[in-house]
Amino acid sequence: MKNTNVYYADYLQLDKLLNSQHPESFKEDNEPAHDEMLFIVIHQAYELWFKQLLFEVNSAIEVMSQENINDNTPQLQTVVHRLNRVVTILKVLVHQIDIMETMTPMDFLEFRDLLRPASGFQSWQFKTLEAKLGLQYEERHGKEYYTSQLKQPEIDIIKTAEHENSLLFVVNKWLARMPYFENSANWEDFETEARDVNIHPYWSTYRKRYSNSLAEAERNNMNAFNEIFIEGKEAGQLSAKARRAALFIMLYRGYPIFHLPFQLLNNLLEIDEQMSTWRYRHMNMVHRMIGTRIGTGGSTGKDYLKAALDKHYIFKEIAQLTSFLIERSKLPALPNSLIQQLSFNM
Amino acid sequence: MKNTNVYYADYLQLDKLLNSQHPESFKEDNEPAHDEMLFIVIHQAYELWFKQLLFEVNSAIEVMSQENINDNTPQLQTVVHRLNRVVTILKVLVHQIDIMETMTPMDFLEFRDLLRPASGFQSWQFKTLEAKLGLQYEERHGKEYYTSQLKQPEIDIIKTAEHENSLLFVVNKWLARMPYFENSANWEDFETEARDVNIHPYWSTYRKRYSNSLAEAERNNMNAFNEIFIEGKEAGQLSAKARRAALFIMLYRGYPIFHLPFQLLNNLLEIDEQMSTWRYRHMNMVHRMIGTRIGTGGSTGKDYLKAALDKHYIFKEIAQLTSFLIERSKLPALPNSLIQQLSFNM
Amino acid sequence: MKNTNVYYADYLQLDKLLNSQHPESFKEDNEPAHDEMLFIVIHQAYELWFKQLLFEVNSAIEVMSQENINDNTPQLQTVVHRLNRVVTILKVLVHQIDIMETMTPMDFLEFRDLLRPASGFQSWQFKTLEAKLGLQYEERHGKEYYTSQLKQPEIDIIKTAEHENSLLFVVNKWLARMPYFENSANWEDFETEARDVNIHPYWSTYRKRYSNSLAEAERNNMNAFNEIFIEGKEAGQLSAKARRAALFIMLYRGYPIFHLPFQLLNNLLEIDEQMSTWRYRHMNMVHRMIGTRIGTGGSTGKDYLKAALDKHYIFKEIAQLTSFLIERSKLPALPNSLIQQLSFNM
Amino acid sequence: MKNTNVYYADYLQLDKLLNSQHPESFKEDNEPAHDEMLFIVIHQAYELWFKQLLFEVNSAIEVMSQENINDNTPQLQTVVHRLNRVVTILKVLVHQIDIMETMTPMDFLEFRDLLRPASGFQSWQFKTLEAKLGLQYEERHGKEYYTSQLKQPEIDIIKTAEHENSLLFVVNKWLARMPYFENSANWEDFETEARDVNIHPYWSTYRKRYSNSLAEAERNNMNAFNEIFIEGKEAGQLSAKARRAALFIMLYRGYPIFHLPFQLLNNLLEIDEQMSTWRYRHMNMVHRMIGTRIGTGGSTGKDYLKAALDKHYIFKEIAQLTSFLIERSKLPALPNSLIQQLSFNM
Repeated sequence: MKNTNVYYADYLQLDKLLNSQHPESFKEDNEPAHDEMLFIVIHQAYELWFKQLLFEVNSAIEVMSQENINDNTPQLQTVVHRLNRVVTILKVLVHQIDIMETMTPMDFLEFRDLLRPASGFQSWQFKTLEAKLGLQYEERHGKEYYTSQLKQPEIDIIKTAEHENSLLFVVNKWLARMPYFENSANWEDFETEARDVNIHPYWSTYRKRYSNSLAEAERNNMNAFNEIFIEGKEAGQLSAKARRAALFIMLYRGYPIFHLPFQLLNNLLEIDEQMSTWRYRHMNMVHRMIGTRIGTGGSTGKDYLKAALDKHYIFKEIAQLTSFLIERSKLPALPNSLIQQLSFNM
Repeated sequence: MKNTNVYYADYLQLDKLLNSQHPESFKEDNEPAHDEMLFIVIHQAYELWFKQLLFEVNSAIEVMSQENINDNTPQLQTVVHRLNRVVTILKVLVHQIDIMETMTPMDFLEFRDLLRPASGFQSWQFKTLEAKLGLQYEERHGKEYYTSQLKQPEIDIIKTAEHENSLLFVVNKWLARMPYFENSANWEDFETEARDVNIHPYWSTYRKRYSNSLAEAERNNMNAFNEIFIEGKEAGQLSAKARRAALFIMLYRGYPIFHLPFQLLNNLLEIDEQMSTWRYRHMNMVHRMIGTRIGTGGSTGKDYLKAALDKHYIFKEIAQLTSFLIERSKLPALPNSLIQQLSFNM
Repeated sequence: MKNTNVYYADYLQLDKLLNSQHPESFKEDNEPAHDEMLFIVIHQAYELWFKQLLFEVNSAIEVMSQENINDNTPQLQTVVHRLNRVVTILKVLVHQIDIMETMTPMDFLEFRDLLRPASGFQSWQFKTLEAKLGLQYEERHGKEYYTSQLKQPEIDIIKTAEHENSLLFVVNKWLARMPYFENSANWEDFETEARDVNIHPYWSTYRKRYSNSLAEAERNNMNAFNEIFIEGKEAGQLSAKARRAALFIMLYRGYPIFHLPFQLLNNLLEIDEQMSTWRYRHMNMVHRMIGTRIGTGGSTGKDYLKAALDKHYIFKEIAQLTSFLIERSKLPALPNSLIQQLSFNM
Repeated sequence: MKNTNVYYADYLQLDKLLNSQHPESFKEDNEPAHDEMLFIVIHQAYELWFKQLLFEVNSAIEVMSQENINDNTPQLQTVVHRLNRVVTILKVLVHQIDIMETMTPMDFLEFRDLLRPASGFQSWQFKTLEAKLGLQYEERHGKEYYTSQLKQPEIDIIKTAEHENSLLFVVNKWLARMPYFENSANWEDFETEARDVNIHPYWSTYRKRYSNSLAEAERNNMNAFNEIFIEGKEAGQLSAKARRAALFIMLYRGYPIFHLPFQLLNNLLEIDEQMSTWRYRHMNMVHRMIGTRIGTGGSTGKDYLKAALDKHYIFKEIAQLTSFLIERSKLPALPNSLIQQLSFNM
C-alpha cells in the first residue's frame, strides 16, 4: 500500500476546483451580476454529481454485463447498493433546484445575454447518463439537435455511450437468462389450469388467472398481455422472455433468490421517478425564470423540456408490468422442486 | 457589453472540474476502492457550496458594513434575500449527508488508511465561513489545534477572517445605531409606568410588564433581563443597546420599517439552526462510520464534533432574546409621533 | 382568560383521532391486509393538513378582501407569513408521497377491491382548496364528474367555495386598486419616450423599451404584450390593470412599499409550483401502483391526473408576467414625487 | 370477501377527524389566536403517524418473536420492508418541524398560557414507541417524572410496553440463535491463527487480526473488544453472543444469507439516527420558541430535551460494533462447508 502524506486541500484539488468560477459579468467592461456566481456554482455542483452518477451506473453495467452473475457472490448486492446510491444522489439533485429558485427572473436577466449561446443546459454528462441508463437515440425528443450546441469530442462521448451496452440492455439479457422455465423437470408437479400451444404451462395458467381478475372495463388488458408477454410484438428493449422473468420476480419476490432481483427492478423504477421529478421541477423553474423568452437554439425552453419529460422515461417497460399483477392469494403455487431452487440450503 | 461566444463546458471549466478526482486507491500498487470516488466528489461538492456561502455572506457583510443603510434603498432587502439563499443552501448540505451515508463502514475502511493524515474534515473554507459569520477564536472548541492540519496560506485566510468584520459584528453596529430612543421628542406622549434612573422610560415600563408576565419559577429571569439589557454585563458580541434594539424589532415587527429587520434576525437564527443540524448529522455520520477508531490528529472524531456542536452557536445572543418577549396584547403602546417614523408616508 | 386544566390527550382529542382507523380488510370474513392501515393513516394525515391549508388560505382571503389594506398595519405581513406557511406545508405533503411509495403494487392489490368505489382520491377538502385558491369550474379537467363520487353536502361545500371570493379574485382587486397611475401629478417629471393614445406614458415608454429588448425570434411577444397589458383581451381572471400593477411591483420591488407585495406574488407562484409537484409525484405514484388497471369511475387513474396536472395551474397569469420583464439597468426612472410615495418617511 | 359500497369520507371517518380541532383560544371569553389551530393540527398529525409507527414496529416484533424464523419464507423480508417504512415516516416527521417553525415565539405566546399544564409534548404513543423499540425504564432521562403529566390508563400502556418484548429484545434473541459456531464440523477446515481457552477459534483469530489493525492510540480498544465480545461484562441488552453474531453479519454481509440480516441491522441504526435527529431539531425548535421560559412540570424545556437526546439512543450497542470492523481483505477466510450454508442451492 502506497501512501505518502495526504493533505485535504491537495487531495481534493481545491486549487483547481475553487478557481474554476469566472463569471462573464465580472470581466472587464461588464457590470458584475452577483447571481452569476450562483449560476456557475450550481451547474458545477450538478456536473460533479453527474460524474459520480456515471461512475456508479457504469460500475453497475460492468457487473451486470457478465455472462454469469453468481447469486452466491456479492455481485448483485453491490449493484443494488450502488443503484440505491444513484437514487439518493438524484433526490439531492431534485432538492438542489430549491437553490436555483432563489434567483429571481430579474436577477437572471442581469447576465443572461452574456451567456449566449450557452444559456441552456447543455450537459454532455447528463446526456451520456441518459444513454448509459438506456435512453435510445430514436426515443430522444429533438434528436436532430440534442447535440447541436456541443463540441465534437463531447458528441463523440454521447454517441459512443449510445452504442455501448446500457443498463437496460444488460438487465434485459440478465432477465432473459432466468433458468427456471427451460427445464421441464421443474414443472412436473405444477397444476396446470390452462394449456396453449407454444406457451409454457405456468404462463397459460397465469394468463387465465389474470384474465379472471379483470374488471369489465379492463378487458382490453388481455390484448396487451398477449402482445407483451407472449407475442413480444410490443416494441421496446425488453424481450417477451425478459418481461416474463421480471413479472415472475415481482410475483414471487418472497422467495430468497428474488430478494435482490426485486430490489434491483425497484431501483430502476425509482431512478426513472427521480429523473422525471428532476425534469419536471427543472421545467417549471425554467418557465418561471424566462417565461416565453427564447432559450438557446431558438426553442422556447419550456416546450422542449415538456416534450422530453413525456418521452424520456427509460424503464417504462418495467413500470408497465404493474398492470399485470394479480393478488398474492390467487398466485399459482410453484412446484416444490422449483421452490428449492429459489431457497437456501437448509 | 462584452460577449464573445460562450460554450457551456468552457464557461463551467468542466475540463478542470471533472479532472480533479484522483482517488489514492486507484493509483499504482493500490487496490481500487470504488467508494473513494464518492468520498472525493462529495467533499468537492461541499467545498463548491462553501465557496458560494462565503460569497453570499461576504456580500451581506459588505452591505451591512456601511455607516448608513438607507431603508429606502434595496440594501436590506438584498441582504435578507441573500441570507435566505444561505439557508436554502445549508438545507441542501444537510440533505447531502444522506449520500455520504450510503457508504458503509466496511467500504470506508478500504481506503481510510490511504488518506492519513487527511482523513478528517479540514476545510479552511468552512472555518472561514464560521469566522465570517461571527464565531470568535475564543469560542472555538479545540482552539489549540483547529488549524493544525492546514497549510500556512490556509491558516492565514482563517486568521484574516477572524480579524475582519464578521456578520455578527456589523449586525451589532447596525442594531446599536437604531435612532428612536435618542430623541426625547419621540417619547413625549409615552405613558410611562415605571421610572428608573438611567433607564429609558420605555425600557423601565417594558421591564415592569415583563416582570409581571413571569411565573413564579421564572423569577430568576429578571436578573438575566437586567444583565442583558441594562447593565450589559453578560459577555458577548452584542452590546446592551444592540440587544434592546433587536428585542424592539421582534416586539414591534408589525410596523413596516421593521419587516426586513425582523426577517434578517430570523435569517440569522435559521442559519445557526441549519449549521447546527448539519454538525449534528455529520457527527452521527462520523460516529457510524468510524465508531471509536481515532480520527485525525489523535482525537476521536465524535468527541471533538460533539464539543464543537455545543459551543459553535454563533447567534445565540439573538436566540436568547426569545426569553424576554411578552404577549402582544400586553405591549406598551408607542407614541404616535414615533409610529409615524416606523410607517410609510401616507 | 378562561383556562381550566388542559390535558394533552384531551386537548388533541386523541380518543377520537386514534380510533378512526378501521381497515375494511380487518373486518370479519376478510383477510387482514397489513398495508391498509398505512393507506388510511396517510390519507387522514393529508386531510388534516388540507384542513390547515384551508384555514390559512381562508384567513388570507379574509384580510385581502378588505377594501382598504393599510400598508402601515401588519395585514399584508400576516398574509405573506401565512402563505409562506402554506408553501411549507405543501412541501411536507410532497415529501409524504415517499411514505405511500413504500407500499408495493402487490401489497395494494391485497385490499384494493374492498375499497370500491372509494379507491380514488376523492377529497372534498382538496377540491375546495383548489377553488378557494382560484381554480374555476370552467378550468377543471373532467368537470362533468369531478364531484361524481361525493355526497351532496360535500358537493355543496365545493360549489359554495366556487362562488365565494377566491384568493386570486381578491388579489386581482387589490392589484387593480394600485393608486400611482391615476394621479397625473405623480408623473409630471417622468421622461416619456413614447406616447400612445389611451396608454399611460409610463406604459408606452415601457412597451418601447421592452420591444427593444426582444431578440428577433421573440418579436411575437409584442402581440402578447398588447393583449395582456393594454387591450386586456387575453381571457383570464386578472384585469389588464391588475396585470400592469403586478408587473410594476416585480420591476420596482426594490422600493420599500413593494417588498411585501413582491413576496406575496412570489408566494402564489410557489404555491402553484408545490401543488403541481404534488400532482406530478402523485400521478407517478398512482401509475406505479395500478398501472393501466382502472381507477374509480371508469377513468384510468393516470390519464385523468395528467390532464388535471396540465390544466390546474391556478396562478399562471402571474407566472406569465416573467416574459415581460426587462433588465434593471434599462428600467424607466421613476419621478421623485412618486418615489417618495413608495418610500419611508425619512 | 365482504364489501359493501365504501365512500371515501366515511372510510376515513373524516367527520370525526375534521371535527377534533377545538382551540382553547377560540372558546368564549378568549381572544382567538390564529396559530393555535396549527399547534393542534401538527400535534395530531404527529400522533397519527405515531400510531402507524407503533403498528409497524409491533408487526416487526411479532415476526421476530418467533422461535424459528425461516430464512426461506418472506418473514425477514417483511420485517426489513416495514422497518424501511419506519425510517421513511421518521424522515417526514423530521421535515414536519419546518412547519412548526413557521410559528413565531410571539404568536405562540398568544395562547401558551391557555394550555397549561399541557404545553409540553406529552405523547403516550411516543413514549410507548420508544419502549417498544427497546428504550428501558432505567435508561430514561427523568424517569421519576416522564409519565407525570399522563393519566393512569396512558401510564398503564407505557408500563405494559416496557414489560413486553421490545424490538431490541427479540433482535438480541434472534442474533444469539445464529447456528454456525455451535457445530464444530463447520470449522474443521478453518485456519486458526490464535487459540485461546474458551474462545471459538474464529473469534480468537479475528481478535488477533483486529489487534493488528489498531493504531497506537487505539490500543485501548482491545479492552473494549474483550469486554464486549468475550466477557460480556459491558452492561446492555445484547449478550456477547448476540454481539458476535451481529459483527459476523456485518463482516460477511456479502454472503446471500446475510443480505437481509445486514439490512435489518442497518435499519435499526437508521431508526436511531432519525429519532435522534427529530429530537435534536425538536429541542432547537422548543428553545427558539420559549427560550428559558419554563416548560411544563417546572423543567426548562431545552435542558430536559438535551439530556434525553444524549441518553435515548436505543441501538447504541449495535452502532458501537463499527469500532471493531477490519478491512475486507484482512478477514479470515471461512471454510467451504460453512460457506455452503450461507449460500443458495446451486
